[in-house]
Amino acid sequence: MKISTKDLLGVEELSVEEISLILNTAKWMKEIPVQDINKMSNLRGKTVINLFYEPSTRTRTSFEIAAKRMGAKVINFNFSTSSTVKGETFKDTVANLQAMGPDIIVIRHSVAGVVKSIAKYTPASVINAGDGAHEHPTQALLDIFTMKEKYGNIKGLQVAIIGDIAHSRVARSNIWGLTKLGAKVKVAGPPTMIPIHCEKMGVEVFYNVDEAIKDVDVIMCLRIQLERQNRYLFPSLREYSRFFGINQKRLQKTKKDVMIMHPGPLNRGVEISSEVADGENSFILDQVANGIAVRMALFYLLAGGNQEDVTH
Amino acid sequence: MKISTKDLLGVEELSVEEISLILNTAKWMKEIPVQDINKMSNLRGKTVINLFYEPSTRTRTSFEIAAKRMGAKVINFNFSTSSTVKGETFKDTVANLQAMGPDIIVIRHSVAGVVKSIAKYTPASVINAGDGAHEHPTQALLDIFTMKEKYGNIKGLQVAIIGDIAHSRVARSNIWGLTKLGAKVKVAGPPTMIPIHCEKMGVEVFYNVDEAIKDVDVIMCLRIQLERQNRYLFPSLREYSRFFGINQKRLQKTKKDVMIMHPGPLNRGVEISSEVADGENSFILDQVANGIAVRMALFYLLAGGNQEDVTH
Amino acid sequence: MKISTKDLLGVEELSVEEISLILNTAKWMKEIPVQDINKMSNLRGKTVINLFYEPSTRTRTSFEIAAKRMGAKVINFNFSTSSTVKGETFKDTVANLQAMGPDIIVIRHSVAGVVKSIAKYTPASVINAGDGAHEHPTQALLDIFTMKEKYGNIKGLQVAIIGDIAHSRVARSNIWGLTKLGAKVKVAGPPTMIPIHCEKMGVEVFYNVDEAIKDVDVIMCLRIQLERQNRYLFPSLREYSRFFGINQKRLQKTKKDVMIMHPGPLNRGVEISSEVADGENSFILDQVANGIAVRMALFYLLAGGNQEDVTH
Repeated sequence: MKISTKDLLGVEELSVEEISLILNTAKWMKEIPVQDINKMSNLRGKTVINLFYEPSTRTRTSFEIAAKRMGAKVINFNFSTSSTVKGETFKDTVANLQAMGPDIIVIRHSVAGVVKSIAKYTPASVINAGDGAHEHPTQALLDIFTMKEKYGNIKGLQVAIIGDIAHSRVARSNIWGLTKLGAKVKVAGPPTMIPIHCEKMGVEVFYNVDEAIKDVDVIMCLRIQLERQNRYLFPSLREYSRFFGINQKRLQKTKKDVMIMHPGPLNRGVEISSEVADGENSFILDQVANGIAVRMALFYLLAGGNQEDVTH
Repeated sequence: MKISTKDLLGVEELSVEEISLILNTAKWMKEIPVQDINKMSNLRGKTVINLFYEPSTRTRTSFEIAAKRMGAKVINFNFSTSSTVKGETFKDTVANLQAMGPDIIVIRHSVAGVVKSIAKYTPASVINAGDGAHEHPTQALLDIFTMKEKYGNIKGLQVAIIGDIAHSRVARSNIWGLTKLGAKVKVAGPPTMIPIHCEKMGVEVFYNVDEAIKDVDVIMCLRIQLERQNRYLFPSLREYSRFFGINQKRLQKTKKDVMIMHPGPLNRGVEISSEVADGENSFILDQVANGIAVRMALFYLLAGGNQEDVTH
Repeated sequence: MKISTKDLLGVEELSVEEISLILNTAKWMKEIPVQDINKMSNLRGKTVINLFYEPSTRTRTSFEIAAKRMGAKVINFNFSTSSTVKGETFKDTVANLQAMGPDIIVIRHSVAGVVKSIAKYTPASVINAGDGAHEHPTQALLDIFTMKEKYGNIKGLQVAIIGDIAHSRVARSNIWGLTKLGAKVKVAGPPTMIPIHCEKMGVEVFYNVDEAIKDVDVIMCLRIQLERQNRYLFPSLREYSRFFGINQKRLQKTKKDVMIMHPGPLNRGVEISSEVADGENSFILDQVANGIAVRMALFYLLAGGNQEDVTH
């Protein structure tokens, strides 16, 4: 089986079969020895452009490492030294990069939908690395991969997502993916952080975090955007931490082996305590490690890789 | 045939034979399949340093992609995080990079002549990626390549260059190259933008753009440097656009299949209208694509590549 | 012989045998042809992360070139666009990079001891590229390599280090290395720049530079940190230059073929005159060139390279 789309724009567009294909390919990428990866040829000599219009360490680095492991040539496009300072439009910048013949363009941008509109007019494969509050599909895929690694199956899992659901592309992509695969998703946060009609996405809404996490298999903490939101969406960081922060005391009232996840970077002591982040239940660094495998799988599949090779 | 010079400093120094060698090699680079490029060995394992003292997206990226396609290792030297903040002189910076044993150094600098003076004291090949208002030879070579691709021959072509001729290294390099190859070059712009004694470069000067473009085969719009010039060299952007901007209405009085070129980045609505930039006559993205091939050719030739290989 | 440690944290921890192993391997790296380096496989496909929390051109570039020559994939981690802006701790940043599976992490940080504490909790090899005023071991190793190249042997050499000994990691690493190998080290600077109990490191202290350099084989000038220290540690740059700057006049009272060294970047006219920096006795650019060989050797050895291969 091959992936049918040119691009990876969001989890919403993916079929259950496509998600499975990506997850299986990622499992294969994680398991095969380095020398076998070196023998793969479908990205060798191809060009991947990383086009990040928002600062990011981990996501950009993860894409870069994944692409280089697959033998691709990587060009990092630094938004701050870019032509945007000279007043060129985003569309012209992409058209120009496209004219240079890249095979895959990875884009992060602060405006929702912009990645999709670009994908339409370039023959290169486009991967959405986060567009505004819309989607961050590779994050959700690596999160789901990490859950599957522990539980074997997503169907029937109960997952609580805690935090600013309304403004989180991580939450949106995970909700699409998890519900497609048959998980039950609960979201919790202060009312200002829960979108209106949130239930229409197939989730159960809680305003009390202890009720939300009581019986779940996975707790996913979202990052609170200190730099912009704390003044408006809740009274203070201390108050957020008290009512919604995941700490050891709160964990005592959950399943003993509940998975703790966080997309990073952490605000220690705000949405998650250090004790929990560094504790036995934490899968935060597994998420990071799995991000490489998932992104290698996506590069492989978007460059025409075939699942037959995977099952060998 | 091999290139006889260690460096590419300007089009002014190139002979007609050398220009032809570069253009033919670029044509070959554009046509051969990726796997054949991978087999070429003359840049494999060599080190190319990109040393940009002015911000640039497209030129730096184009050199980087070209070098990586040829199998070179590329080091990007970021001027803003450089030792210059520590007060080191430009000459010391280059001497130090040179001591690290690079094979080719690509330099952009805001001071005319600086690239040439550096080339003298380093054994590495130096490519001028733009030095002040002096030359930008790879831009002119890719422009001429693009014209040749359409018209087959440069001899006898009529080319109009519109804009700030006095401060444009793109204009200067193109004038040198085009006149050497037998094209007739017309320049047009407000009097403040036309250098004194401009005719001595072998061009015809116009202060009325419509007269300049009437019978030409190519119109090359130059970028107006919004950030520094608009207050001094002409009354307003709107006025510049009205008198010198290339728009659809103006095109109706030219040859039907006139080529529209622009080195980018575009100021849409100033020196060129969006309709024209995105229209049928526009070769702007061809220029970008050809930039890769021309730069691959230069790397190949400066690393000792031979035209015998090219004609195979 | 193999290197016994996972990391290179400082010269203080190295045995005489380990220093010799590194120097011999570096000599080999400098001599073997490029195509033989390309055949070496012990870094091919491995990932090196350059993690620089202080701006640096030459050191970062030197590590990058060395790693790429050895066939490694290099990821540059730009501290200024990093998650640190989002409030993530340094430890979390490293933990996350570690989860991405790098083989070697090169770290520069302004806090002494931070590199060592990180090395403890990552399985990757860590190379200290400078930590506060503590150590800069690769600089000392390349300095010693350069001295050995000229003199054949370090034992019995007399080396004067001039400048801000108290705040210089370059001085500290050189003092450890040179005294271990049997050189006699003299240090000179204004009293405010000489650490208390400096003699305990096995050096002789001078407050008069002419006395310090009278009979030495090597004069190593340290860079005066213009940006922070001139107001506090000595009255003025001119005064520093007059009393401690190495100039042609001062050299006339030293050994005729004394080696002049400087770790760069130079403050011409302050700690060293241009005449001396560019003169016959200067080994400053040799130091830079040798930095590549020393760092290649370290990558080779830390990746498990064996001296048996070296002696072939």
